[in-house]
Amino acid sequence: MARVDQLASERSKAQFDVDEMKIVWAGSRHAFQISDRISRLVASDPAFRKDNRAMLGRKELFKNTLRKAAHAWKRIIELRLTDEEASRLRFYVDEPAFTDLHWGMFIPAIKGQGTDEQQQKWLPLAYKMQIIGCYAQTELGHGSNIQGLETTATFDPQTDEFIIHSPTLTSSKWWPGGLGKVSTHAVVYARLITDGKDYGVNGFIVQLRSLDDHSPLPGITVGDIGMKFGNGAYNTMDNGVLQFDHVRIPRDQMLMRVSQVTREGKFVQSNVPRQLVYGTMVYVRQTIVSDASCALSRAVCIATRYSAVRRQFGSNNDGVETQVIDYKTQQNRLFPLLASAYAFRFVGEWLKWLYTDVTQRLQANDFSTLPEAHACTAGLKSLTTSATADAIEECRKLCGGHGYLCSSGLPELFAVYVPACTYEGDNVVLLLQVARFLMKTVSQLGSGKKPVGTTAYMGRVEHLMQSRCDAQRAEDWLKPSVILEAFEARSARMSVACAQNLAKFANQEEGFAELSANLTEASVAHCQLIVVSKFIEKLQQDIPGKGVKEQLEILCNIYALSLLHKHQGDFLSTGSITSKQASLANDQLRSLYSQVRPNAVALVDAFNYTDHYLGSVLGRYDGNVYPKLYEEAWKDPLNDSVVPDGYHEYIRPLLKQQLRNARL
Amino acid sequence: MARVDQLASERSKAQFDVDEMKIVWAGSRHAFQISDRISRLVASDPAFRKDNRAMLGRKELFKNTLRKAAHAWKRIIELRLTDEEASRLRFYVDEPAFTDLHWGMFIPAIKGQGTDEQQQKWLPLAYKMQIIGCYAQTELGHGSNIQGLETTATFDPQTDEFIIHSPTLTSSKWWPGGLGKVSTHAVVYARLITDGKDYGVNGFIVQLRSLDDHSPLPGITVGDIGMKFGNGAYNTMDNGVLQFDHVRIPRDQMLMRVSQVTREGKFVQSNVPRQLVYGTMVYVRQTIVSDASCALSRAVCIATRYSAVRRQFGSNNDGVETQVIDYKTQQNRLFPLLASAYAFRFVGEWLKWLYTDVTQRLQANDFSTLPEAHACTAGLKSLTTSATADAIEECRKLCGGHGYLCSSGLPELFAVYVPACTYEGDNVVLLLQVARFLMKTVSQLGSGKKPVGTTAYMGRVEHLMQSRCDAQRAEDWLKPSVILEAFEARSARMSVACAQNLAKFANQEEGFAELSANLTEASVAHCQLIVVSKFIEKLQQDIPGKGVKEQLEILCNIYALSLLHKHQGDFLSTGSITSKQASLANDQLRSLYSQVRPNAVALVDAFNYTDHYLGSVLGRYDGNVYPKLYEEAWKDPLNDSVVPDGYHEYIRPLLKQQLRNARL
Repeated sequence: MARVDQLASERSKAQFDVDEMKIVWAGSRHAFQISDRISRLVASDPAFRKDNRAMLGRKELFKNTLRKAAHAWKRIIELRLTDEEASRLRFYVDEPAFTDLHWGMFIPAIKGQGTDEQQQKWLPLAYKMQIIGCYAQTELGHGSNIQGLETTATFDPQTDEFIIHSPTLTSSKWWPGGLGKVSTHAVVYARLITDGKDYGVNGFIVQLRSLDDHSPLPGITVGDIGMKFGNGAYNTMDNGVLQFDHVRIPRDQMLMRVSQVTREGKFVQSNVPRQLVYGTMVYVRQTIVSDASCALSRAVCIATRYSAVRRQFGSNNDGVETQVIDYKTQQNRLFPLLASAYAFRFVGEWLKWLYTDVTQRLQANDFSTLPEAHACTAGLKSLTTSATADAIEECRKLCGGHGYLCSSGLPELFAVYVPACTYEGDNVVLLLQVARFLMKTVSQLGSGKKPVGTTAYMGRVEHLMQSRCDAQRAEDWLKPSVILEAFEARSARMSVACAQNLAKFANQEEGFAELSANLTEASVAHCQLIVVSKFIEKLQQDIPGKGVKEQLEILCNIYALSLLHKHQGDFLSTGSITSKQASLANDQLRSLYSQVRPNAVALVDAFNYTDHYLGSVLGRYDGNVYPKLYEEAWKDPLNDSVVPDGYHEYIRPLLKQQLRNARL
Repeated sequence: MARVDQLASERSKAQFDVDEMKIVWAGSRHAFQISDRISRLVASDPAFRKDNRAMLGRKELFKNTLRKAAHAWKRIIELRLTDEEASRLRFYVDEPAFTDLHWGMFIPAIKGQGTDEQQQKWLPLAYKMQIIGCYAQTELGHGSNIQGLETTATFDPQTDEFIIHSPTLTSSKWWPGGLGKVSTHAVVYARLITDGKDYGVNGFIVQLRSLDDHSPLPGITVGDIGMKFGNGAYNTMDNGVLQFDHVRIPRDQMLMRVSQVTREGKFVQSNVPRQLVYGTMVYVRQTIVSDASCALSRAVCIATRYSAVRRQFGSNNDGVETQVIDYKTQQNRLFPLLASAYAFRFVGEWLKWLYTDVTQRLQANDFSTLPEAHACTAGLKSLTTSATADAIEECRKLCGGHGYLCSSGLPELFAVYVPACTYEGDNVVLLLQVARFLMKTVSQLGSGKKPVGTTAYMGRVEHLMQSRCDAQRAEDWLKPSVILEAFEARSARMSVACAQNLAKFANQEEGFAELSANLTEASVAHCQLIVVSKFIEKLQQDIPGKGVKEQLEILCNIYALSLLHKHQGDFLSTGSITSKQASLANDQLRSLYSQVRPNAVALVDAFNYTDHYLGSVLGRYDGNVYPKLYEEAWKDPLNDSVVPDGYHEYIRPLLKQQLRNARL
């Protein structure tokens, strides 16, 4: 049977080599090949089917996830997959599960905070999944502020044990994924108390459930915290609640790499630098940025393909309506998101490099770049996750009414993505951290201390405060140097203005609180500059493939100029550009949209997503949307019978005016 | 038992008379009393319980809605409620159901488009719910563009019947609420074909199901279109799919108020002006604006109360953490939304007046204000629904992690609200309609035709093009005249700039398409001006109650100045204000936040929502959040057993390394 491809004509319009773009997107030929192979492996295995997720009740849904997780592990063993391949497999299974926390938080916590002996004892068990662990930090009454945690771990020198206890309701551990129903162990964060003194929050390995029959151990109350946003989505995960009633653990289950408690109950700090913790944060946030580009590109892929399939209004001469992707309003909303997907991909790639660099420096006891790297990753985490959450919803709206159907894939993608704005640092709190770093950088400018890394441009602050943008024609806005200088000037000027306003306050903390809204705006400006500059740097590399670099240049310019338009107020109020220049930039942006239009479908094909991974009838590779939407509808349980359950009790008495006597 | 009120101290801070504010919010003492009584009636009736909605499977959920709808109707009859009271009751039941479409679309369509005889025949049946109807317009392949509909109604003069037919898959009716499982009848929109000629889209009353056993009539295929966004949410509604295979209906079931087909098959237009249709659109969109203020105020109520309960970081001297509502970043995000809730309430009230005015004029054959009223309501529908959808999600984020739990009420509120951005006119399409009207208004300025209603300010365009904002101190931004002139200048200048750019195009339609992004921005500016000016007008009325007017003035200024900051780029690029003035406005905004802070909780209390209607643990009136969150968690079906279903099949084999032989 000939395969339908309703998007064939779109694909034939592409002016670049899609296969080469796939390599660029994947990061390397090697990465592409693994992703390509593993994603097909998952897609072709009926055990990983996910299109029925929205219709399952909570219990069925959860059991189904347990099955998939076990099946995935079985396949990983059978096929002797490498760690990299195994991780890709879990990624393409595309269902939040306890394994995410086991591999992503429990094991790294032990590796990062455990002593060598502790690692030798616990890691082999965890690697084989003979124990399953989670990461129990947040509490019912305490989220971002780790110092506010209430759970206690009191040392009992008599028995050489810690007593883990939940003194209040609000101290109940709350949210940890994998905790509610699956984990046998947890890394629990609790206030260390020894000899009557509180030494702050430390990590402890605590067994929660019997390895024989999975029942909770004495003193442990554990359960699921209930339904979360969306159909399917994170309801496949057993985010949990946990209370301790004087649970005793051996002293050697405190994670002792950084701090120790001796047999006598003395608290001792090791000589391991505490900054190592920041190295881990750089790592985790780098993966979040990379996830942002995945989620965003999925949504953009769906919206782009369906915008090419869908027709509305404005019939041509042949009576066929216009493809909605041809409308400028659609392009104006969609193409900046397409550009953002690529931008976030490249900045994520760069963050991977940054992490390697920081790690190497830390090993050589060089902490000089750490604060900047920390601020930069915090800011990029905030920027990319906020933008991605908004973009997924925008893509849903760009699909019109049908985007509201679960079969579009977009509702679940949104619901499953949005927590990224809150976890691992609330996005606004993170922007304030960036702002603190920026204010410090500005305040040290006179001192001869040279700003490094992504704040290096602040070293040219005198120039940037008075530079004038020299764009005179729309085409001038295609020059990387013009774009870069405008973004640098805007960011530098906003930071300096904040610093000047701060200086008017007698109490710096009060000033910081009062000006926090402006400070977050300065942080956003700084972070957008980073993304723009890393995209531009990427384009200075050698990028093979017919037309590939040209397309990326177009996308880079769209990313920058759409931001410039959106934040026109910043650029104008700081005098970084003039109104006339803003208007020229906007003219240029419009003409870039026309250039990207014929390549749009090919540019989302380059993400190389299988229909399984996309999980969207609207985003199908073959564009055969309507027959499939129709087919999907009939699968709803409500269509099991043509006369609905409840007709006799609740509809018929209504129609027959017999309600008065009906029992409802 | 003493009732807990964790928010008592917040309430005691209020500087105004909350009871009087409740009247202002409700619109009148009469409206307040009805809302208050009916909302308590619903809240106290266990049959209307809704806190278990997220956990129900689709079939259970739907059946439960049928039960509630029948119960509601029973109560309406038993209590002999007036139409107004009945409508409030359905509102407070707060669950999308087939009755929404029956009362809100089916009956109005017959009233609006049916002849007197048709109304006499069908309305009594509908009023008693002896038949249940829906509104079948959109098709699988056709949404906003009504002219693109494919369903046909071909007149057969031999039998004096219309043959209703779905010629293609894409012509299947798709989306109509109440269609899938409940409706016995529908108003179906189809292309009228008689004597071989296509007379465009008309409405027809078609019976779909037998009144005896509810089975679909011959030639009719009907079903549900499947799961939609969110838990509970619109999944309580049977949005349906419908196909006709040559279904015959008597000629007199064509709605013939505006057009008729004679016994001979002749198409005749009546002398009823077609503009009447626009009157109906003004009505429907006015209700949508009013719904926007309801949805927004619910979200704001939840976020405000929980922001006062929740504490994070920055402990005071007493060791208690700071209430998050005291953070400027929180205020900066939350208070503009609080102000928007009030702003939308008042503009909705004004739209109600506008509808009455338009109706009276139409009855007197005065069509002069209709285009302006139509553009105005289209724009306000777009503005308020987009802002509300975004605001609900922002409120969810403002509640931190717990906002992601279904028990917060916010996920469902979001999912149930967002379709408002798409139905009754996609928001971007509507903005383009507004833009068309604005361009027409500008082009007629020289012709002596005076712009009316909300575009009256355009009549002072010469002044507005060169006026200078005279704000010199932050306090100047408290003057209504200063605010109004800045918003008028911005809007007029953006429209004029668009008109000038349009004039450069030889082909106006091409120009309109090319500049559509700018045109929608001009529309937004115009609509924001309307909301601001109606808020200001409201404050010129006599508003009794201690401190009530003062609070509303603060909110009005917050609404205007937060918009001014957000759209600074518009104000600066058009030269409507200077950078210095923008900065002063922002300073003023910050100080307004401090003024609203002590009144915030009381300002959301004034919405007078019951805990039942709010449906949020985080937004509870008594602020007793954490114990209730904890309690809710245990209700999840996953907590039925402490060892989860699936342990033996999928977890134990993993832990015991027996996966190789497991059947998964």
